[in-house]
Amino acid sequence: MTVKGMEPRISDYTVRRLSIYYRILEEIERNGIEVVSSAALAEYAGTNSAQIRKDLSYFGNFGKRGRGYRVSVLKSEIKSILGLQRKWKVVLAGAGNLGHALNSYKDFARHGFEIVAIFDSDPGKIGGTWDGVAIHDIRDCQMIIERTGAELAILAIPGPSAQGAFESLRAGGIRAFLNFAPRKIEIDPQVHLRNVDITIELEGLTYALHSSRT
Amino acid sequence: MTVKGMEPRISDYTVRRLSIYYRILEEIERNGIEVVSSAALAEYAGTNSAQIRKDLSYFGNFGKRGRGYRVSVLKSEIKSILGLQRKWKVVLAGAGNLGHALNSYKDFARHGFEIVAIFDSDPGKIGGTWDGVAIHDIRDCQMIIERTGAELAILAIPGPSAQGAFESLRAGGIRAFLNFAPRKIEIDPQVHLRNVDITIELEGLTYALHSSRT
Repeated sequence: MTVKGMEPRISDYTVRRLSIYYRILEEIERNGIEVVSSAALAEYAGTNSAQIRKDLSYFGNFGKRGRGYRVSVLKSEIKSILGLQRKWKVVLAGAGNLGHALNSYKDFARHGFEIVAIFDSDPGKIGGTWDGVAIHDIRDCQMIIERTGAELAILAIPGPSAQGAFESLRAGGIRAFLNFAPRKIEIDPQVHLRNVDITIELEGLTYALHSSRT
Repeated sequence: MTVKGMEPRISDYTVRRLSIYYRILEEIERNGIEVVSSAALAEYAGTNSAQIRKDLSYFGNFGKRGRGYRVSVLKSEIKSILGLQRKWKVVLAGAGNLGHALNSYKDFARHGFEIVAIFDSDPGKIGGTWDGVAIHDIRDCQMIIERTGAELAILAIPGPSAQGAFESLRAGGIRAFLNFAPRKIEIDPQVHLRNVDITIELEGLTYALHSSRT
């Protein structure tokens, strides 16, 4: 239903909600539910049905008014919109504690992400393996990226090293980065970057605690 | 300027943007800039000035039309809205790799968050310390929460243990949770919960790669 190249520029927030709808649809399909109304989907997702219809309208016309969405159809449409009809190979920069936690994160495989290489600059770590994934010198990343066909990178490194690691991986051809370093990465227009900023998440909570204590 | 208890129910997305504006204001203040237009602030934040005016309008009238915002004033107002005029004590559930990475995360202190205790159920870890922070038996959490005055918790534990840890900490009086476990936590209405779902972030990137490759 999606016409490639015809999508309007849609926001990260919309894409994030699509991921959430997708998870909900997976769950209700497991529970044997075949049709879901936008109102019910909205309730599961903690939003409203106008938002759901608006989010989906960017990509086509998925439901019949008053009839709800067919769960399996909507799920597979969203899967395709998100590019999840195939697997994606990921490299991980940073063989520290965060890198270790991410490398053993069971949910990646279930969602179609495979960590194919780990990079670090510490000679004490290079040459080792974690759960069968080799730790390489980041200076060799171009070769490894080419060999593995990786397309995404996770930056799990301290702030001061983040920009340099980004540039090495970018030179190796990676165009999509998930950054955990609390540092702004300077990118070029061909790059897609998402930042996971844990203090921003905590501030969402302090806001909630602070504003509800009146 | 904020009238406590008078705020409309504002979305997590608005609060997240306030955190981003706050970081930008900190940075431009460091650069000696005293006044900023909503257009300039929007450009730094990757949004538009209508969005900025709308986000700020929930909390009061911060700028004079055509004159821009005073950086120091707006910064301190947002700081106060987010509840950051004081420090917050945080407990960390999970002494695994992710817990270790979070406990050594330098940015927490800079943003006013202090990890005061770590909880686990592994007898081999209980009794140890990480960077001076003691690892306690999660069964003792109620006492430790009371003693330390912690108000937030980070769940850095595997999915199957997440709900149980949540319930222990909730019984200890914690009302705000940042959850890294890839598992839906069932909460009560007094609880504020944020989930960090790394696969959702990666899907934002696969969407971008997939939809730009036309």
